[in-house]
Amino acid sequence: MNTLGHIFRLTTFGESHGTAIGGVIDGCPSQLKLDFDFIDSELLRRKTAQSSTASQRKETDQIEWLSGLLDGVTLGTPIAFMVRNEDCKTEDYEALKDVYRPSHADFTYEQKYGIHDWRGGGRASARTTLPIVVAGAIAKQILKGKGITIAAEVTAMGDTEQARKEGDTVGGIVECCITGVPAGLGEPMFGKFSAELAHAMFSLPAVKGFEVGDGFALAKMKGSEANDTFINKDGKITTLTNHSGGIQGGITNGNDIVFRVAFKPIPSIAKPQQTVNRAGEPCQVAIEGRHDVCALPRAVVLVEALAAMVTVDAMLLR
Amino acid sequence: MNTLGHIFRLTTFGESHGTAIGGVIDGCPSQLKLDFDFIDSELLRRKTAQSSTASQRKETDQIEWLSGLLDGVTLGTPIAFMVRNEDCKTEDYEALKDVYRPSHADFTYEQKYGIHDWRGGGRASARTTLPIVVAGAIAKQILKGKGITIAAEVTAMGDTEQARKEGDTVGGIVECCITGVPAGLGEPMFGKFSAELAHAMFSLPAVKGFEVGDGFALAKMKGSEANDTFINKDGKITTLTNHSGGIQGGITNGNDIVFRVAFKPIPSIAKPQQTVNRAGEPCQVAIEGRHDVCALPRAVVLVEALAAMVTVDAMLLR
Amino acid sequence: MNTLGHIFRLTTFGESHGTAIGGVIDGCPSQLKLDFDFIDSELLRRKTAQSSTASQRKETDQIEWLSGLLDGVTLGTPIAFMVRNEDCKTEDYEALKDVYRPSHADFTYEQKYGIHDWRGGGRASARTTLPIVVAGAIAKQILKGKGITIAAEVTAMGDTEQARKEGDTVGGIVECCITGVPAGLGEPMFGKFSAELAHAMFSLPAVKGFEVGDGFALAKMKGSEANDTFINKDGKITTLTNHSGGIQGGITNGNDIVFRVAFKPIPSIAKPQQTVNRAGEPCQVAIEGRHDVCALPRAVVLVEALAAMVTVDAMLLR
Amino acid sequence: MNTLGHIFRLTTFGESHGTAIGGVIDGCPSQLKLDFDFIDSELLRRKTAQSSTASQRKETDQIEWLSGLLDGVTLGTPIAFMVRNEDCKTEDYEALKDVYRPSHADFTYEQKYGIHDWRGGGRASARTTLPIVVAGAIAKQILKGKGITIAAEVTAMGDTEQARKEGDTVGGIVECCITGVPAGLGEPMFGKFSAELAHAMFSLPAVKGFEVGDGFALAKMKGSEANDTFINKDGKITTLTNHSGGIQGGITNGNDIVFRVAFKPIPSIAKPQQTVNRAGEPCQVAIEGRHDVCALPRAVVLVEALAAMVTVDAMLLR
Repeated sequence: MNTLGHIFRLTTFGESHGTAIGGVIDGCPSQLKLDFDFIDSELLRRKTAQSSTASQRKETDQIEWLSGLLDGVTLGTPIAFMVRNEDCKTEDYEALKDVYRPSHADFTYEQKYGIHDWRGGGRASARTTLPIVVAGAIAKQILKGKGITIAAEVTAMGDTEQARKEGDTVGGIVECCITGVPAGLGEPMFGKFSAELAHAMFSLPAVKGFEVGDGFALAKMKGSEANDTFINKDGKITTLTNHSGGIQGGITNGNDIVFRVAFKPIPSIAKPQQTVNRAGEPCQVAIEGRHDVCALPRAVVLVEALAAMVTVDAMLLR
Repeated sequence: MNTLGHIFRLTTFGESHGTAIGGVIDGCPSQLKLDFDFIDSELLRRKTAQSSTASQRKETDQIEWLSGLLDGVTLGTPIAFMVRNEDCKTEDYEALKDVYRPSHADFTYEQKYGIHDWRGGGRASARTTLPIVVAGAIAKQILKGKGITIAAEVTAMGDTEQARKEGDTVGGIVECCITGVPAGLGEPMFGKFSAELAHAMFSLPAVKGFEVGDGFALAKMKGSEANDTFINKDGKITTLTNHSGGIQGGITNGNDIVFRVAFKPIPSIAKPQQTVNRAGEPCQVAIEGRHDVCALPRAVVLVEALAAMVTVDAMLLR
Repeated sequence: MNTLGHIFRLTTFGESHGTAIGGVIDGCPSQLKLDFDFIDSELLRRKTAQSSTASQRKETDQIEWLSGLLDGVTLGTPIAFMVRNEDCKTEDYEALKDVYRPSHADFTYEQKYGIHDWRGGGRASARTTLPIVVAGAIAKQILKGKGITIAAEVTAMGDTEQARKEGDTVGGIVECCITGVPAGLGEPMFGKFSAELAHAMFSLPAVKGFEVGDGFALAKMKGSEANDTFINKDGKITTLTNHSGGIQGGITNGNDIVFRVAFKPIPSIAKPQQTVNRAGEPCQVAIEGRHDVCALPRAVVLVEALAAMVTVDAMLLR
Repeated sequence: MNTLGHIFRLTTFGESHGTAIGGVIDGCPSQLKLDFDFIDSELLRRKTAQSSTASQRKETDQIEWLSGLLDGVTLGTPIAFMVRNEDCKTEDYEALKDVYRPSHADFTYEQKYGIHDWRGGGRASARTTLPIVVAGAIAKQILKGKGITIAAEVTAMGDTEQARKEGDTVGGIVECCITGVPAGLGEPMFGKFSAELAHAMFSLPAVKGFEVGDGFALAKMKGSEANDTFINKDGKITTLTNHSGGIQGGITNGNDIVFRVAFKPIPSIAKPQQTVNRAGEPCQVAIEGRHDVCALPRAVVLVEALAAMVTVDAMLLR
């Protein structure tokens, strides 16, 4: 359950303050010359994001490539990579070891596993999304060769500077558009393109909503308003409008695939909060340390990465 | 890709106007005495729904059980079942054979398969969701034995009587609540309980949005507003509020699981619409015949069924 | 676990004396015009086999096609089919209801499921292999279009006439050859072509051994004897010998794929045998009724069918 | 396709002369205190094997644990580990870069991927089995807690000292016995315990045959000889004989699981051999360097490891 994808598959591993974070990409086509500069630039997008909202952890994020490559060219065998965890200030978390932080995964991990890595959020840390950026960057490179591009942006976000002052955090929405996808991708029943996208996006921490095309707004429309009229545009059949977000009956129709992802505010806030500890005793917690005010700026590249992986997977499945 | 689930798995088959619609449930626990009356009553909920909105096709929906049972008790082997398609007025669809109905799957199926069953929507027909109700009814029975209940309702819907008069259709929202789920279900990375729910719900025709807990509304909140405070209630740790919808870090926290699903209006409208045919020529289409004005009433039992299947699957995976 | 294959997937269902036996084929390419006569002729090969060894159950084996076809052409959607169980003399088995027949699955099913269908062997009956023949016949049709042929034969078998007289049964070996497979199929690590074949063949009842190429005989050879020399034959690289059976490093090399499957004797013998009943009490059992003396003649078409399915799956995975 | 298992899953990565060899174990139960000394001792069994037959490559095989552990205790999250490749004499292989070594995977990898890592056998090197030993050692630890033990031994092997003198290699047979497995493990149709074992064993390089219980010898027996009589032994139902090798109808019966694996001779021989190069030109090759005379001694721990993994997986699936 740490694997995403059917043919182009990413298996991730790592805890925030463990030895390393990494992944294994299985099913990547062979003979692809990797653009390492591009991969690094994508990691940089995740890391720096907007300095006004990002946490201060120094992540050098130097990828070590472990397998699957010969002179930078993919062999078709598993591509394993990792980034060592450095600058791990475990002591910051020592105090929180026995406290269930509100809306964090401490409690649920304990319930599931009977144990959890309390150091820096462990497996539930946002840091564990790093391998997604790497796999996404490779997927984007594959798509680029097919004329497919992916671009996401933050379309809604709370007031970060105000939140920072108050020791609070904010949420927001990322919108993403995949351009150039051929018609006919996706499966019609349980592997709808929309379902695969939804599944992938909900893998990101803090995601609580997902919609395709006009999404929730479609619930208020009439059929005559929501339907996308087919037209013949220079000999190619396409739709005049795109309320469907490029997906009909679960399968791509050749139009832009448009979707939005809603992120809740990061639960790590400096403001004191009431909670209980492992013994079930009430206590107060104020989460100090380097934490983002908002996950959104970092999330943009993650949304794109997952969208790229889902698209490549659907193309290889075809 | 016509299979849903990891351990409790449903494979469905059938086209609207083919010989039969059905499914195979693999991984159902043995020694369960099936409550056939309950299954029939669930099918009835899907069929009749609200008479004001439902289409007039006479579906007797008589299930024929093909395997996996001995005297009505599950054997642990695959449970296959089917419902014959009757009252198939193929001639209704003859005229639409070569027309791409707006926002239907005609065009995308053609692009994917090079062929599609134009009779009554074929595989893309809402009728193909029938096996989901059957599998969901069995899943509910398993959950009932564990004290878990599932209830969905329509919380938003357009004005159906007005739409019917205008030859139009409306969309809406279904909200669902799963009560009694133990903490610790779901996987933390790519198989989050929320991701599995999202994936399942997007399998339903016309679904364009999904949110858990406060969903998109969380994007506008501050962390201090969105966080769910842990409390000790009679010796059991739970949360005071439930903005998270019962899922934190992808894993259930023991609280009610609450989510909403947005359905677009049914694309089959009687109003004349502009479109193109298979030759790419512009034409008009007015979709006559027995069609629902709104899918929502029927969708309630489907949302519940999928929620039940996802929950059983997560319990068996544990 | 009642599904075989990755892309071309067969899910089977049915017990020997239940309502029906059948299957769902998912992932079959669209636009294939099925040759129903060929499918029937394959079923006939399984049914009649050699009259000297086959049981006397009258199986009309009339396939009912339930979905996935339009005018006999595949739609790309799941192809479901079934054969009703008729001529079920349940009373023959009534006496055996509480007896663990030696080397049968009665005991192990009981241990696994806490229940089992004692009527005619239930799910463990050889009759449940029927859907494999159907799926195999479709797979063969796909392969035929690619110039790939599959032929199996019995290469070793006990003396059936003698065994029949003695109320005994015999085992044997089936050898199979797949001709025309392109080089490059199969996966190098855990999905080796040989591993997929082995996995498929061990799905058949009574299979206890499997070997590829020279198989067990290779264990006694020296490397210089076992190695297959590469040669250039009219511009195409192939091997002079074929000790490897067409597979090297788990991947096909373009040469004939040759393998053998060992079947134990059918455990249902008329000779009285000592055993215990469900209460653990010693008892004697003499299995009367219509039973094969040898499974081998029927097994030939099954081995071919599974080989065809594995080959098609590997081609679609590529 | 570099993943083995359903719940207890091992994904491996690495080429012989790449940066590292390693694996990710997903689905390992949490709260297991790993016995690192045992894991190291298992790796030592693979490495040193019998000095008379083993190659001379110095493999320090120092495992670096990357994730999934807290103070040596499993977290339930993916356990990633790796071993760096050292002492890589790539120049040894430079001369063989363009030559298809007989019965090696050079040619088939080229056909599949259009590229292959010629350095030391790349992904096809026996070195890539190292992660199997690690995962197997962890699986054995889980089984030990359940009273299940696994022991394999070489039961047939060619004359290694003679072969070494002649620049040749030999094959052989490994027999393995799993003791203490409860009745009821395995799936009855396509995931038979025997099928899962066969699939796993064929993942090892050079495996060409597999048999369970009396295996191929059963093909020559009569039913009355092959059947295992059930007996009541001190209140527990078991079988008097074990021709079935502990598996009936694909499911374990509580008796010892016994199977044999046939290995062909290692294809790397010092004796000059005729072959062709990538251009299709005939040439001679004599494979110098440090190569095993026989894979069997090393294979014993690998067979045990895979058997342990399959058994744990079946237990977790139950």
